Amino acid sequence: MQTVQTVAAFGGTLSVHDHESTSCNCTMRFAVFTPPQAKDGSVPVLWYLSGLTCNWSNVMEKGGILRLAAEHGIMVIAPDTSPRGDNVANDDGYDLGQGAGFYINATQEPWAEHFQMENYIIEELPALIADEYPTADMSRQGITGHSMGGHGAITLHLKNPDRFASVSAFSPIVAPTHVPWGQKAFSNYLGSDEAAWKAHDACELVRSNPSNVEILVDQGTGDNFLEEQLQTQRFAAACAESTQKVEINMRDGYDHSYYFVSSFLPNHFAWHSAALQN
Amino acid sequence: MQTVQTVAAFGGTLSVHDHESTSCNCTMRFAVFTPPQAKDGSVPVLWYLSGLTCNWSNVMEKGGILRLAAEHGIMVIAPDTSPRGDNVANDDGYDLGQGAGFYINATQEPWAEHFQMENYIIEELPALIADEYPTADMSRQGITGHSMGGHGAITLHLKNPDRFASVSAFSPIVAPTHVPWGQKAFSNYLGSDEAAWKAHDACELVRSNPSNVEILVDQGTGDNFLEEQLQTQRFAAACAESTQKVEINMRDGYDHSYYFVSSFLPNHFAWHSAALQN
Repeated sequence: MQTVQTVAAFGGTLSVHDHESTSCNCTMRFAVFTPPQAKDGSVPVLWYLSGLTCNWSNVMEKGGILRLAAEHGIMVIAPDTSPRGDNVANDDGYDLGQGAGFYINATQEPWAEHFQMENYIIEELPALIADEYPTADMSRQGITGHSMGGHGAITLHLKNPDRFASVSAFSPIVAPTHVPWGQKAFSNYLGSDEAAWKAHDACELVRSNPSNVEILVDQGTGDNFLEEQLQTQRFAAACAESTQKVEINMRDGYDHSYYFVSSFLPNHFAWHSAALQN
Repeated sequence: MQTVQTVAAFGGTLSVHDHESTSCNCTMRFAVFTPPQAKDGSVPVLWYLSGLTCNWSNVMEKGGILRLAAEHGIMVIAPDTSPRGDNVANDDGYDLGQGAGFYINATQEPWAEHFQMENYIIEELPALIADEYPTADMSRQGITGHSMGGHGAITLHLKNPDRFASVSAFSPIVAPTHVPWGQKAFSNYLGSDEAAWKAHDACELVRSNPSNVEILVDQGTGDNFLEEQLQTQRFAAACAESTQKVEINMRDGYDHSYYFVSSFLPNHFAWHSAALQN
């Protein structure tokens, strides 16, 4: 693991690292914010998964997340949204290929060689964090994310119900099998058999595999992607049909930007902190 | 005045406007964050002046300033750092011309036609705000800024001692007549007569025109520009030689970035709020 950058912030340290990923078969970059409380012992860990086109920097720069992490004493890990590089398959669209990993393991060519984001986020990166950050208490992990990353947070939680003690999402893609973003990504990464897609659809998963953890969702009513790509009402209906507890807050007039994320991240931190600091 | 963008954030509204500036003789863009408290009456105003290359978006996106403004009930105004456009003089350097107005009125060609930033910030834009934002209480104004904008905040305060009830700065250029950034800008904008430069140098101004308002300064010790361009110790010495009250906080290991600004902006907001909310 190589350290690309370290920056002092809010009494803690933001570190950006490169490492050779065996899952993704390329160099991957991620960021970790270590809060000041880690000087005195172990701290809980919150994963933040970003949306289409983003990398570690969006939330660290624009989310107001460092102040919150320092206030609550929580380590934040921000992975990239996909493998990247000249040797990695790509697409001209912003919603496929580099920047659009969708937190799943691709089975189809040309994607399968590198696009193994589920293995990366669930297996490889946590092991690296546990090795390199001894103050990260891996027994107290939460997960959140935005848009494609909200999809990642909810689905990875439901697929790994013992991993994350808290889960939340901002404007998540909750029904990828029903919307253009998800259909484009899943048909390319997973192939044309739509039955294989359902294992990665939050609405399907809460019906088949509801968890014991209440899920917090915030969604802006002024979000241009709400009607076509996000369709939050599908998740509300799916949870209502299952035992999945959920709190969905529709936020009047808020859009899809980091102005929205940063506005409600304080609430999400309080939510995660209540679960992780016990 | 035209509204380019409005975004919901932290219960308030971020608005970005274009207007035809008579001072700068071109279209100028600025942003205003109206906190939720403005729904119930007038609120104080905090001016944030940005540094070299920046515009309104840096602090609004990366400063964590909207959360603070909403918490304290203060309107934030973020002007651009210079006139801009195809018809506006420019330079290949990042530290002269567009993005580098230095908050002074240029007297030399080719700059004088558009680079009238002192008039713009002190006369034209406040009048526009008073007209367009009736909840802005122009009897309660504070000013802050970063780097070149810290220079702007301190010098504009000292030149207009009755305007701002509170003043602070992050990593300000305090001695432009002694450092390369200032010498390049002032020689171009003001000409070779160095006597004319002193009216725009914070260290000179606290000696000749100290104010009754204590000035708050934060400066990172890990700032790559500290030794050559910022030289904070000159300001400490100048204030010590005058009646100017100042609090200078040297912050161990912090750099020149918005990670630094956002880390200590909560302290600055508390400082301004204490002066403006009385």
